[in-house]
Amino acid sequence: MRPSGRQPDEMRPIRFTRHYTKHAEGSVLVEFGDTRVLCNATVDERVPPWLRNKGSGWVTAEYGMLPRSTNERMAREAARGKQGGRTLEIQRLIGRSLRAAVNLEGLGERQITVDCDVIQADGGTRTASISGGYVALHDAVEHLLREGKIRKNPLIGAVASVSVGIYQGVPVLDLDYAEDSNAETDMNVVMNDANAFIEVQGTAEGHAFRMEELDAMLGLARNGIAEIIAAQRAALAG
Amino acid sequence: MRPSGRQPDEMRPIRFTRHYTKHAEGSVLVEFGDTRVLCNATVDERVPPWLRNKGSGWVTAEYGMLPRSTNERMAREAARGKQGGRTLEIQRLIGRSLRAAVNLEGLGERQITVDCDVIQADGGTRTASISGGYVALHDAVEHLLREGKIRKNPLIGAVASVSVGIYQGVPVLDLDYAEDSNAETDMNVVMNDANAFIEVQGTAEGHAFRMEELDAMLGLARNGIAEIIAAQRAALAG
Amino acid sequence: MRPSGRQPDEMRPIRFTRHYTKHAEGSVLVEFGDTRVLCNATVDERVPPWLRNKGSGWVTAEYGMLPRSTNERMAREAARGKQGGRTLEIQRLIGRSLRAAVNLEGLGERQITVDCDVIQADGGTRTASISGGYVALHDAVEHLLREGKIRKNPLIGAVASVSVGIYQGVPVLDLDYAEDSNAETDMNVVMNDANAFIEVQGTAEGHAFRMEELDAMLGLARNGIAEIIAAQRAALAG
Amino acid sequence: MRPSGRQPDEMRPIRFTRHYTKHAEGSVLVEFGDTRVLCNATVDERVPPWLRNKGSGWVTAEYGMLPRSTNERMAREAARGKQGGRTLEIQRLIGRSLRAAVNLEGLGERQITVDCDVIQADGGTRTASISGGYVALHDAVEHLLREGKIRKNPLIGAVASVSVGIYQGVPVLDLDYAEDSNAETDMNVVMNDANAFIEVQGTAEGHAFRMEELDAMLGLARNGIAEIIAAQRAALAG
Amino acid sequence: MRPSGRQPDEMRPIRFTRHYTKHAEGSVLVEFGDTRVLCNATVDERVPPWLRNKGSGWVTAEYGMLPRSTNERMAREAARGKQGGRTLEIQRLIGRSLRAAVNLEGLGERQITVDCDVIQADGGTRTASISGGYVALHDAVEHLLREGKIRKNPLIGAVASVSVGIYQGVPVLDLDYAEDSNAETDMNVVMNDANAFIEVQGTAEGHAFRMEELDAMLGLARNGIAEIIAAQRAALAG
Amino acid sequence: MRPSGRQPDEMRPIRFTRHYTKHAEGSVLVEFGDTRVLCNATVDERVPPWLRNKGSGWVTAEYGMLPRSTNERMAREAARGKQGGRTLEIQRLIGRSLRAAVNLEGLGERQITVDCDVIQADGGTRTASISGGYVALHDAVEHLLREGKIRKNPLIGAVASVSVGIYQGVPVLDLDYAEDSNAETDMNVVMNDANAFIEVQGTAEGHAFRMEELDAMLGLARNGIAEIIAAQRAALAG
Repeated sequence: MRPSGRQPDEMRPIRFTRHYTKHAEGSVLVEFGDTRVLCNATVDERVPPWLRNKGSGWVTAEYGMLPRSTNERMAREAARGKQGGRTLEIQRLIGRSLRAAVNLEGLGERQITVDCDVIQADGGTRTASISGGYVALHDAVEHLLREGKIRKNPLIGAVASVSVGIYQGVPVLDLDYAEDSNAETDMNVVMNDANAFIEVQGTAEGHAFRMEELDAMLGLARNGIAEIIAAQRAALAG
Repeated sequence: MRPSGRQPDEMRPIRFTRHYTKHAEGSVLVEFGDTRVLCNATVDERVPPWLRNKGSGWVTAEYGMLPRSTNERMAREAARGKQGGRTLEIQRLIGRSLRAAVNLEGLGERQITVDCDVIQADGGTRTASISGGYVALHDAVEHLLREGKIRKNPLIGAVASVSVGIYQGVPVLDLDYAEDSNAETDMNVVMNDANAFIEVQGTAEGHAFRMEELDAMLGLARNGIAEIIAAQRAALAG
Repeated sequence: MRPSGRQPDEMRPIRFTRHYTKHAEGSVLVEFGDTRVLCNATVDERVPPWLRNKGSGWVTAEYGMLPRSTNERMAREAARGKQGGRTLEIQRLIGRSLRAAVNLEGLGERQITVDCDVIQADGGTRTASISGGYVALHDAVEHLLREGKIRKNPLIGAVASVSVGIYQGVPVLDLDYAEDSNAETDMNVVMNDANAFIEVQGTAEGHAFRMEELDAMLGLARNGIAEIIAAQRAALAG
Repeated sequence: MRPSGRQPDEMRPIRFTRHYTKHAEGSVLVEFGDTRVLCNATVDERVPPWLRNKGSGWVTAEYGMLPRSTNERMAREAARGKQGGRTLEIQRLIGRSLRAAVNLEGLGERQITVDCDVIQADGGTRTASISGGYVALHDAVEHLLREGKIRKNPLIGAVASVSVGIYQGVPVLDLDYAEDSNAETDMNVVMNDANAFIEVQGTAEGHAFRMEELDAMLGLARNGIAEIIAAQRAALAG
Repeated sequence: MRPSGRQPDEMRPIRFTRHYTKHAEGSVLVEFGDTRVLCNATVDERVPPWLRNKGSGWVTAEYGMLPRSTNERMAREAARGKQGGRTLEIQRLIGRSLRAAVNLEGLGERQITVDCDVIQADGGTRTASISGGYVALHDAVEHLLREGKIRKNPLIGAVASVSVGIYQGVPVLDLDYAEDSNAETDMNVVMNDANAFIEVQGTAEGHAFRMEELDAMLGLARNGIAEIIAAQRAALAG
Repeated sequence: MRPSGRQPDEMRPIRFTRHYTKHAEGSVLVEFGDTRVLCNATVDERVPPWLRNKGSGWVTAEYGMLPRSTNERMAREAARGKQGGRTLEIQRLIGRSLRAAVNLEGLGERQITVDCDVIQADGGTRTASISGGYVALHDAVEHLLREGKIRKNPLIGAVASVSVGIYQGVPVLDLDYAEDSNAETDMNVVMNDANAFIEVQGTAEGHAFRMEELDAMLGLARNGIAEIIAAQRAALAG
């Protein structure tokens, strides 16, 4: 039934490749099937102006797509002179999600910026970004511990994200582009490793969805996220 | 317990004033307590370039806050030279929500733009915009029917929105600014008059929320939205 | 002869509604007939960089039109990414006019920003903005006196503005949109309550005007402004 | 009394150098004393979109200052990414003034753009731009007549401009920078060769001005403009 | 003597990985040592407006660096709202160089855009972009031939590029970042497979260079480019 | 053979007019035939942020063309809201070239900005800008010496620039617009008065060029630059 032949509750293969580039404090290529996002975490020893001298750190994210990461070439945002609404919305979501994994006071007065750049898109770039961004953030925090800049790990739990939706009337997990562009409902769920919700963003594209459909989707999401968190752990143990 | 003295499941007074300005095809001042948003619907006999000659209409929204609609003056976006990420995110949400109320083919090749400008803000400006925007959209559609430009009403249902959240550990309905700025979780829910979901956007600000908290919030939202839809009907009958 | 049936020297009804919104230190809805402008005055305890440590305050203005305040919807300036030439010209005029009412040294090192946002336009939005902006400025100054931040009132006189023009060969006072868009000459006059000129901006739209026409227009303006200043006084006494 | 030693009613030396550059259809260097502005008129065989197929032409102007035309270097507007409010205000004034000299229908469906670029500034750049811009416009119209693109001269009269003001209590003509920066009142007047007003823009910088001061200034302006128009004629006859 | 231990005339290892992403008509990851650039070529069946109906195609390029491709994170150009001067300069160079490889008339009225995005930077990103961009362009042209959109191959020769410079007084080939940031002279050379020059851009950073130094650098460049062209051929044969 | 009738190795008449405007510390009108560029050097007693407290000065350049300096009017960059790629490329080149003439430490913590504005273009505006910019820079440095702000002249040599190219198969010196727009190869060369290269930027427009053509062009450039440096000396001695 699914274009990929997957079962409704079946994730695509997930892969985290750490140390993907040599400059960043955390550098992770995350793959959800054919979706490939490079997540680079940068430590900056300054916080934004509105946080100065408050004893707290900050975590933020930026998101971009390479112009030909998609089937049709998209105009380069740098050339158009601004980031579009979708880009801003996604990078705000990534930033909020990753901050939920960190005790910002424990980070000290420094900022970690997680750049999520989509190399190849096939649906789910924002959920891959959050899931891979967490691993990059983890590596950047390890770097700070190793350097002795902080003593105690400020991470308070893992964070991961997956999309769920209703495709041809059936709730499905981890939509690829073929599904995403035809789904009746599309929902992005962010959770932590304590099985609690950080973000739930559901949108009816075709028809409004009912409570029982919402429950079915959230159930799928929970299982998918458990799987991603296991993969994150394996990658970080590697 | 609530700063306003309201019960957890108690909405603020809601008011829709139609024909608020004289130029727009639909012009509604919506008030959720002290939050006041002017929603003006404009009919344009052209659709955006990417929709031309496809036999379908379009509904879109723009959102803005007057600089001193808030307690601290915000910089004017026109002077700063761009709309911020929050503004873009909100106007995309309003647009998607209102499109869910319309059969776009039935609208013909024309566009309705709903401008939501916040005159005074006290929490819930996006949910008020959606709820008031629907009434303005309704009046613009009536205008088209009256003018004979369309024969059949393309509206397929009412749309309304309310915020819910967890404030001091208790799920509450329709957060005002005092609550919103201190809520642990904040969720905006958009539903139609068939009791189905169009958008669910929940964010854990302080701590991640559990399934039972999500269910409690959605239950409150459902009741609030029923109340708003009743008020919309009364205003449109007036 | 005038589309509205008014006499050549007859103003439209003028109304000032103070305390129109709850956040601003001065908040006035001014109406010149169907023209409605919301003037919000904000006190900021900092001056612009070029005035720092000079012992003087500053008064500035910003102007905007809601997209559907006019008969045809105008593009939102925040979305277009810049304020147009007309907007900048008007807000510079409002700022200069209001500064003429204030002893800036007496204000102390703080700035008052007067935001003039047009809710509904029917000609004369800039003259209404100046006239209403003065009342909002007055309320903001009263707020500073009440708070004890300044001891002595730095206002040195009232300021008001009206348009005059030549419509179908006849000098007329306070042009509405129907007249303004067909006037041969259009002049905006700003005066103080000592009967002296602060700004005179006359433009020949159709044919160049002669000295005697200029004199006739200035005579009308003087009477109109006296009427507005009386209305300002009544509102401030209210 | 005047820093330059001029009499109150004395203009600076005025000079128009035609054919100053070789590419433009009209190219005039205008000098009012040390103020030097290059006015280039360009004929474009297209009108702006909103005028297409209406049988009318258009005249517009753009204004700029070389960064070091002034005593302190000003930031280059192209580098800052936008034209400032003063620039937009001045180029709108120049455009309106020059259009008053032309029968736009007689121009045919083409546009003349007059670029006024300030090479050296010493007060009065906008009045020099209008006065020199008229000569450049005249040459561009002659070019069209010579090329046989139009048969009948669409110019309906000369246009010139001068500043007047009140300096140390005395009405003076054609203010240079030393006066302009200290004037109590500053007024730019645009007139045609029929002794009628096209624009009057007076601003009280220091103290509000009275009717008799206005009259005195307008009298000076009339004489100054007559002198400029004589110089324009001499240059065009040359 | 060189930080990398290379001989003065020794290139870094060069690698071209074709079909690196799945959407683009040509997709090549090029590596010059640790410098990694993704070159994606997109075929667009339209040409820019100024080329329409002229019977010719076009080849253009865009260039960008991922924010953390460098040792210090660079601000994202899309977020800053414009491409910097260096970016524009480089993408103009890449475009000119690639156009030199193509008979544009033979391409038909279509455009090929080559996006060069730097994944990891270690000196020589522009020369790698040109060298890899040529392979991506080649694959896009092959795609057009395979699709039957063009009959005859419009490529008229291979194009490759390398940097040369003077490091500690010695002419060296293919500078990495450690050399580039300390070189006295830096030169980028673009040549075709007929041993002729397409671009020569030499800059004295520290001291001006003499004719014999120029000759020595050009000699090194010639050898390096022959090596790159051999590697391109091997990759395209693969 | 050349449109102008010049010999292949013949420069256009070169003229430097110093003290062209009255405000700038150095103000030079440079003419290469009909190409006229105004070069104004401004001394600013501050350096850019990244140079503060480093004991070094800075020299930078900005470049612009008046809209009708060219045969076809170009859009004003200030109105378009950004400087184009060509502009940025040229002003970066001018800045680098002029810095090669100065010992920046000897300048002290101040910046000299050289504005090069093209009054009339006929090919070679960038080489004229560098050559004239050097004279303006020299005058600004003399100003600093005269004012006693620096004791020792930080200029370490003269800098000049000329274009060379291959026109109808023949290497020619100092291309005018008629040649430049039809040249097969175009090269800009910047040299100092010690006969050494500062910049070499050659581009094959039509066909790739061979080593012997490069040598012929560089030979012409050397002679042209010697001639320009002699003219600079004469002007500075004048």
